Amino acid sequence: FLSHPEDLGVVAVGFSGGQCKPGVDAAPSALIESGLLTQIRDELGYNLHGHDTVHLYTDLVPKEDPDYRNMKNPRAVSAVTKKIADQVYNQAKEGRLVLTLGGDHSIAIGTIGGSAKAIRERLGREIAVIWVDAHADINTPETSGSGNIHGMPVSFLTGLAREEKEDIFGWIKDENRISVKKMVYIGLRDVDAGEKRILRENGIKAFSMFDIDRHGIGRVMEMALGHIGSDTPIHLSFDVDALDPMWAPSTGTPVRGGLTLREGDYICECVHQTGSLVAVDLVEVNPSLAPAEDIGAHETVRAGCSLVRCALGESLL
Amino acid sequence: FLSHPEDLGVVAVGFSGGQCKPGVDAAPSALIESGLLTQIRDELGYNLHGHDTVHLYTDLVPKEDPDYRNMKNPRAVSAVTKKIADQVYNQAKEGRLVLTLGGDHSIAIGTIGGSAKAIRERLGREIAVIWVDAHADINTPETSGSGNIHGMPVSFLTGLAREEKEDIFGWIKDENRISVKKMVYIGLRDVDAGEKRILRENGIKAFSMFDIDRHGIGRVMEMALGHIGSDTPIHLSFDVDALDPMWAPSTGTPVRGGLTLREGDYICECVHQTGSLVAVDLVEVNPSLAPAEDIGAHETVRAGCSLVRCALGESLL
Amino acid sequence: FLSHPEDLGVVAVGFSGGQCKPGVDAAPSALIESGLLTQIRDELGYNLHGHDTVHLYTDLVPKEDPDYRNMKNPRAVSAVTKKIADQVYNQAKEGRLVLTLGGDHSIAIGTIGGSAKAIRERLGREIAVIWVDAHADINTPETSGSGNIHGMPVSFLTGLAREEKEDIFGWIKDENRISVKKMVYIGLRDVDAGEKRILRENGIKAFSMFDIDRHGIGRVMEMALGHIGSDTPIHLSFDVDALDPMWAPSTGTPVRGGLTLREGDYICECVHQTGSLVAVDLVEVNPSLAPAEDIGAHETVRAGCSLVRCALGESLL
Ligand SMILES: [Mn+2]
Ligand SMILES: [Mn+2]
Ligand SMILES: [Mn+2]
Ligand SMILES: [Mn+2]
Ligand SMILES: [Mn+2]
Ligand SMILES: [Mn+2]
Repeated sequence: FLSHPEDLGVVAVGFSGGQCKPGVDAAPSALIESGLLTQIRDELGYNLHGHDTVHLYTDLVPKEDPDYRNMKNPRAVSAVTKKIADQVYNQAKEGRLVLTLGGDHSIAIGTIGGSAKAIRERLGREIAVIWVDAHADINTPETSGSGNIHGMPVSFLTGLAREEKEDIFGWIKDENRISVKKMVYIGLRDVDAGEKRILRENGIKAFSMFDIDRHGIGRVMEMALGHIGSDTPIHLSFDVDALDPMWAPSTGTPVRGGLTLREGDYICECVHQTGSLVAVDLVEVNPSLAPAEDIGAHETVRAGCSLVRCALGESLL
Repeated sequence: FLSHPEDLGVVAVGFSGGQCKPGVDAAPSALIESGLLTQIRDELGYNLHGHDTVHLYTDLVPKEDPDYRNMKNPRAVSAVTKKIADQVYNQAKEGRLVLTLGGDHSIAIGTIGGSAKAIRERLGREIAVIWVDAHADINTPETSGSGNIHGMPVSFLTGLAREEKEDIFGWIKDENRISVKKMVYIGLRDVDAGEKRILRENGIKAFSMFDIDRHGIGRVMEMALGHIGSDTPIHLSFDVDALDPMWAPSTGTPVRGGLTLREGDYICECVHQTGSLVAVDLVEVNPSLAPAEDIGAHETVRAGCSLVRCALGESLL
Repeated sequence: FLSHPEDLGVVAVGFSGGQCKPGVDAAPSALIESGLLTQIRDELGYNLHGHDTVHLYTDLVPKEDPDYRNMKNPRAVSAVTKKIADQVYNQAKEGRLVLTLGGDHSIAIGTIGGSAKAIRERLGREIAVIWVDAHADINTPETSGSGNIHGMPVSFLTGLAREEKEDIFGWIKDENRISVKKMVYIGLRDVDAGEKRILRENGIKAFSMFDIDRHGIGRVMEMALGHIGSDTPIHLSFDVDALDPMWAPSTGTPVRGGLTLREGDYICECVHQTGSLVAVDLVEVNPSLAPAEDIGAHETVRAGCSLVRCALGESLL
């Protein structure tokens, strides 16, 4: 689905406004400093585009941003994700693969919104989304307990949540949206009661850790990719908290009982092997949240780099 | 098989006399203080019965209790397990699900003895037992090296070991016993030569860690539940040392190469999903045995809570 | 394939010249001091031969040993492996199972060279080799980046690398060599680009960690043993770095994302169960490379002992 599969558009998003813990905005720099982009260029052979800046979006954050419909920082997140949607769209419309380094998971409103629009325009197709996460991130503003928008991106992207106000996600149009039928979750293990109801009522495909234990990650990926079908462009949105805290402790909302790094890498390799990948997000790496006693941040950054390289084609043999 | 599936009888057993390390008697308090019963009531919706006391059974422990047939503390363990059998029986005969928080694994003489009797009376049926453990706990007094009774409960429960003396397990009657054909082990990895012979000679179904590696936990649970059949009430007796010490270090006889917490939770979820569960034991959490350098006790208690909640119906989606 | 399956020839190789980090020569002593040979004799019932000496081969190491064809210590490694080949051959020609405790992985030039020759003479058959390792160790002197010979043994053993000079592996004859068709790799995850090409061009069977994640270790062992066939003597060469550093941190070239100890034990148990095992190597345990903060060396030695015992017949039930 890419006209220039050897070209990689990079969007480095230093933004943390979709949740309350500072530090996740430092992830792109940490990933890049640890050599990720160099590896991608030198070892995997991509031509990089847009990789020379980590965007901080400070000019887009309003001075006043009171809660609205229970959402925290609604105008800031709306403005930044709108901008990210443009950035991703501009890369994707050139037929490039797009890599976004977050940032908290609210930014997926922008990344998926941008790639959905570009693929519609370029190919007349809907994208599928593989959302790898401990969480479903599908609360509506009304079902959310915390009001943190990084728990809501899927509801805005699928149209389950909507808002008219132009400066609070009113900019999201049908061209940016995805179908609930094209969503597949992998790794869920901390899902609110309200979210469970939303998943059930909308028949959304979800593989929890229970399913991975039952079937093994090999079979789960077969089923996940079978659900999507082989003729559909795929956007992979990987929240590092899908990994067990043993491998990725430095993240805002860690949940035990997660994927091993091997399983995470396997997911990324499988998605790459489909040949249908059009965009990848890596989000929620927070280098400042390292358990004091050890090398948590370093390990989490390394894990994140590994996931990205696997999604971009690194393989063991 | 329960007439009141929403009612949960709780028996909190602060007893450690089936082995030699102090501290396992503090497990029920630690589990309860970490919020287990509150979660069970508020999140899983059970009505709790008998949950307001941790029983210490100090009045049942005789002043003098010399070894007998190689058993240590034989009169104390006999008297306490007899009392536990009554407690579990009294809950089970009301048609309630019964949760016992141990204590060392000798207490299963009481828990299984009590639920076997109640289910026989109430339904005219034999129970099956799923024994999740690194150890088989099926030594007879004569094959045991240590003389610790927590390594013998299965032999007393199945009638492989018998004793006439009323004050040393003479109270165990056929109504309290279970059939070796209805035992299924999961997680074995430290089994004495004598026990291996007993398992073989009696054709007892056992899934060791080797089987779990070979088939995966999903397939092993299918086979384990298939062996039991869908029309049999199940008593789940979970020794926390079935988990790898990585997840449950605070236990008296840890053995490497065990279940991941995910696999442990999976076992509990699968058993719950049968709808045949009539009783659950969680044993051998010993909060005082925490590796000095880290948070072992806290993690072990958390793991124990997770196992119990999964057995009682918590699910990921 | 053994005329005396209860007899175990032991070759303890205190040699580290195939790579640059001191300490791997201390592994045989560490393994033996931790009780490995006693366990093998007392619990597994083997008669031990040749177990009373750890060989240091100091007399075989030349004073001057300049690099040759990019190889470091070429004369020393050649002389030592030639001697090891004799030692293993002498045990194997008696129809004994042979256990070699390394040492770095260069010593496999000797162990496999010796057993290949003995089995040819004794049974007129070619051996198969199961090489469990994070690395393929199949560089030729020319493709190697480091010049460390422990990264080259497979290329010398298969004849992909050859050298006429008698004192630099010229002693390797066809009788010592194995066929690339009889090699099976398990656990690969850090393979050079040059090695990947060699593996592909020679159609060498290799199961990477990706395959283990996809199929599970149970299915991978079925496929690996199926490739070899049931009528072929097997030499198992186990590099402890195949295990994840979580279980075996004390090794010269650890690579994340490796086998769990359970998977390692499972491989060894499966190979034992074939009844076709004629020789086992355990290599690359380096007790001096323990992460400062913890008990790495102790754990690595324990893991190594466990692997060897499983290969020699220890089973859980
Ligand atoms: Mn998450
Ligand atoms: Mn997320
Ligand atoms: Mn037990
Ligand atoms: Mn146990
Ligand atoms: Mn290696
Ligand atoms: Mn090696």
